[in-house]
Amino acid sequence: MALGAAGKVERWGVFDLALNGPAAGNPFVDVRIGARFRYRSRAVDVDGFYDGAGIYRVRFMPDEIGEWSYTTSSNVAALDGRTGSFEAAAPSPDNHGPVRVRYTTHFAYDDGTPYVPIGTTCYAWTHQGDRMEEQTLATLRAAPFNKMRMCVFPKSYTYNANEPVYYPFERDPAGKNDLARFNPAFFQHLEKRIRDLAALGIQADLILFHPYDRWGYAAMPPEANDRYLRYTVARLAAYRNVWWSLANEWDLVKTKNVADWDRFFRIVEESDPYQHLRSIHHSVVMYDHAKPWVTHVSIQGSDLEKSREYVAQYRKPVIYDECKYEGNLPQRWGNISAQELVRRFWLGTVSGAYVGHGETYLDPNDVLWWSKGGLLHGESPQRIGFLRKILETAPAEGLNSLSTYYLGAGQAGRYYLFYFDVNQPAEYTFDLANGPYHADIVDPWEMTISSVPGTFSGKFTMKLPGKPFLAVRFEKVD
Amino acid sequence: MALGAAGKVERWGVFDLALNGPAAGNPFVDVRIGARFRYRSRAVDVDGFYDGAGIYRVRFMPDEIGEWSYTTSSNVAALDGRTGSFEAAAPSPDNHGPVRVRYTTHFAYDDGTPYVPIGTTCYAWTHQGDRMEEQTLATLRAAPFNKMRMCVFPKSYTYNANEPVYYPFERDPAGKNDLARFNPAFFQHLEKRIRDLAALGIQADLILFHPYDRWGYAAMPPEANDRYLRYTVARLAAYRNVWWSLANEWDLVKTKNVADWDRFFRIVEESDPYQHLRSIHHSVVMYDHAKPWVTHVSIQGSDLEKSREYVAQYRKPVIYDECKYEGNLPQRWGNISAQELVRRFWLGTVSGAYVGHGETYLDPNDVLWWSKGGLLHGESPQRIGFLRKILETAPAEGLNSLSTYYLGAGQAGRYYLFYFDVNQPAEYTFDLANGPYHADIVDPWEMTISSVPGTFSGKFTMKLPGKPFLAVRFEKVD
Repeated sequence: MALGAAGKVERWGVFDLALNGPAAGNPFVDVRIGARFRYRSRAVDVDGFYDGAGIYRVRFMPDEIGEWSYTTSSNVAALDGRTGSFEAAAPSPDNHGPVRVRYTTHFAYDDGTPYVPIGTTCYAWTHQGDRMEEQTLATLRAAPFNKMRMCVFPKSYTYNANEPVYYPFERDPAGKNDLARFNPAFFQHLEKRIRDLAALGIQADLILFHPYDRWGYAAMPPEANDRYLRYTVARLAAYRNVWWSLANEWDLVKTKNVADWDRFFRIVEESDPYQHLRSIHHSVVMYDHAKPWVTHVSIQGSDLEKSREYVAQYRKPVIYDECKYEGNLPQRWGNISAQELVRRFWLGTVSGAYVGHGETYLDPNDVLWWSKGGLLHGESPQRIGFLRKILETAPAEGLNSLSTYYLGAGQAGRYYLFYFDVNQPAEYTFDLANGPYHADIVDPWEMTISSVPGTFSGKFTMKLPGKPFLAVRFEKVD
Repeated sequence: MALGAAGKVERWGVFDLALNGPAAGNPFVDVRIGARFRYRSRAVDVDGFYDGAGIYRVRFMPDEIGEWSYTTSSNVAALDGRTGSFEAAAPSPDNHGPVRVRYTTHFAYDDGTPYVPIGTTCYAWTHQGDRMEEQTLATLRAAPFNKMRMCVFPKSYTYNANEPVYYPFERDPAGKNDLARFNPAFFQHLEKRIRDLAALGIQADLILFHPYDRWGYAAMPPEANDRYLRYTVARLAAYRNVWWSLANEWDLVKTKNVADWDRFFRIVEESDPYQHLRSIHHSVVMYDHAKPWVTHVSIQGSDLEKSREYVAQYRKPVIYDECKYEGNLPQRWGNISAQELVRRFWLGTVSGAYVGHGETYLDPNDVLWWSKGGLLHGESPQRIGFLRKILETAPAEGLNSLSTYYLGAGQAGRYYLFYFDVNQPAEYTFDLANGPYHADIVDPWEMTISSVPGTFSGKFTMKLPGKPFLAVRFEKVD
């Protein structure tokens, strides 16, 4: 999933228009720049941004193959009324466009290719310096993840005492922010990492605000928050692998109220011509995910079976972005076993939801994957990869909850995946219409799939291994 | 815990007065027999019962050492005004009296010896014939359990198709019950088994009604229910190891309403001179355990952490009598793994509650411990025995919930037992006033207790093994 060959723009790639303009005053505040892009009779209005050193940019992600034209608009004459055109080529084989909600509670890329989110979490990985960041990317290359939860702002928290390499705003020598002046180098670096993720087929689930802060980014005045959102969306929205997560633990950000978060959502929705996915993550109190600008439900919680209720309530995709992390920290949120995390992935899956990974093993240098990236040490990722392969061969329409006695999900009459959790029946009577089905016993921890001889139809009793934490998969025989 | 040497009555043993009376008519209905027992200035009124073949009995459990006298009363002259006396001797070493509520949410025997309920379940074990019943007793002799949930009535249910040896009421050849005539042989057999349990130090948690019925015992008219309760209490209350469980799954007994259950409780309370423990067990809808005649809370549920709420709400002891069974049945209630059952025992324990065992492994002859008894096949009983030993060396005042971040219970300033469940911290900072403490790492599955070198006081960080399902115990150094 390269964003597009150099000098060539492809469908869902990035067209980047750079213009020279005034560097005096405060271009971030004083200068408005944008463009109207046209494809045949259609017009798409896009905000541009100041990139420092007198350079203004308008970035655009064409969603059609063919000729696009544009006309800039600005309150500065030199940037106003500039026109041009370019040809959007067919996308590269790994470029399927941005991820959208599909089949109500699932996802697909814009070209219809199914997308099954298998996320991980490295909140502050882009603030660790190139050496560790490259190591993180190398780790991701061999890992099963296709979504990354990551913060725009640096992070101040336990195990996170280091200063970032870049700051998002200009700072004076005493560390005082000039919130009216962004630091282009900060954003250029962030963009590079988003492109790196795109090249690995990983969605960047960008967290726009968070409470873990010692620099003042969690307590900016409203106009600075709004300007930051508009600037960030103008810079990043053309990258097809961007998702907007309005916050991590929004309810712990004590400087903002619900009306603020509503306004932030609307700013992002209004500013993003491509309508990337939008959600918000909580600690204890959930933001109302029924609000129309929320595209999917982002959950912190350990009660994976409850995802069935969320799916039924919101009729949107549900992702347990944080169900606690594999690790050995003193803190409850950071020390569940690999077995328990794998179990939670399966519980969420057979409840019709999606689950995210994180890893928090104590490290003498405080390099914990969950925040800084680096290396993975745990035993869950390969099992999560095993689950991903199963899901990627499941129906494109996704797995919907179909059974609650033993949790099972699938597409009725075509595909069923049951997970038996702590239950260990030695036999079970299934009742599956529209057979015959082929059956497999799946061991999520041992990562084995054992075909059951014969085919199955209607009501039948199947012998099972009588071991806990197993699954059974039924696939319609064509 | 023998009930007392033959011919000799001891404190909390059974004085059994047998009198000859009329056998004609229906003595169960026509004849009232009782006695007033006196110890110094105190009087205790006790109901007697007809035991068939013209024999009437009044059973009495003296709770004081010394001379007791009695005077019978009856509506039949031959049974009225009979007097006598006997000497109650000091109890045998294993006889500590009946179990009472103590320290609000815990139990102790009447002599003050702590009692930690470690229950199991063989609902219909007394209906299987002597050979299997003796096998059950032999199994119990080597098992860790000191409470048995068992039904008075026989059981008709899946895996329970066999007829009982004895029926509680007279039946005609067509199987029609005469609900006005009890079958003394049925009750004599039940009493024998209650005495057998007493000899093993096991409390008989007698279930008076249940819904699993094909003989009509779940659908008797009110006067038959009331007479059955009075007769059963008159026969059995003198056995010190009896508890009254008004029902199993009361909410599935569709023939009775809440007012009926209230009345049943009051009949038992009014009829039992010794005030044995009383509770009632549910399927989905809980009976209101706040009612004054309920001595302790009997729970069906898998959410062991919720026991903290029950303890706080009712201020009575809480027993999870049914948290699902170790086994391999198709049914969810009968197939959790041994590991999961042991985990639930620990979760309940460190939440300030008690937990019961059951076992349901498929058997070609449908002999499942949970109902018929026989042999134990599982891996949880020995681990439950390991927990019992830990609890029996814990403070006599019981374990109260003291910590909810990681679940921990104990007696503040003296004793703490933390259980880490799926969490696997490699270190943790405890803060324990009133030290120093000795610490042990406890592995509930491997059944090991590893002493941690040194002693601990105040706030300190302890290295932990970084494995899930471990516990840490702190005991005050004297």
